[in-house]
Amino acid sequence: MEKVNLNHKLKLFNELWSPKIVGELNDSYIKLAKLKGEFIWHHHDNEDELFFVVKGKLLIKLKDKDIHLGEGEFFIIPKGIEHMPVAEEEVEIMMIEPKTTINTGNIKNEKTVDNPDWI
Amino acid sequence: MEKVNLNHKLKLFNELWSPKIVGELNDSYIKLAKLKGEFIWHHHDNEDELFFVVKGKLLIKLKDKDIHLGEGEFFIIPKGIEHMPVAEEEVEIMMIEPKTTINTGNIKNEKTVDNPDWI
Repeated sequence: MEKVNLNHKLKLFNELWSPKIVGELNDSYIKLAKLKGEFIWHHHDNEDELFFVVKGKLLIKLKDKDIHLGEGEFFIIPKGIEHMPVAEEEVEIMMIEPKTTINTGNIKNEKTVDNPDWI
Repeated sequence: MEKVNLNHKLKLFNELWSPKIVGELNDSYIKLAKLKGEFIWHHHDNEDELFFVVKGKLLIKLKDKDIHLGEGEFFIIPKGIEHMPVAEEEVEIMMIEPKTTINTGNIKNEKTVDNPDWI
């Protein structure tokens, strides 16, 4: 049982689109990630997913609108909703999602991270 | 489906020790709270609970150690673990916990908030 400092943890990795686990509570993981560029359109059949911006800006594209997130803002993507994260510049985020969540959701491709590392 | 800006939401209330719901995902709520002073020793039989400091400092007393949290830091209190939040000065926090979680856990008293408001 140790506290987690988001900025300290974010200094431990540089990979993009590669979520790292920094905590677990109940059936969920807390993850950190660095994103830059466009991800892919996907959805999660069974999991709601929370994106919280720690540093920078993140656009979450939905089919019917764009969600622009700045520092200190979060958005919850309900299960089943198609979405695509887009970061014009590198952004640092915290995510909260069930342990069963795969980053690419219903899509499996070279961006899929099956077993994220703990940091 | 709207984004949530933590600072904007925190301006909407001044009550201490009165968590407000700002989001839900899966079986959990995201709550904001303002704390000052000592709470009570309690535990949650079935729920892990996450405390994230948005502004200020929070001490989480455990039976065997003290956890000092600053801005951008979180701590997860596993189910069953006795804890008491203490804030020397007013602190603003975000919490993540199952919807079934009662703020005073196994204790019922005048500090118990049974049905937190959404803001």
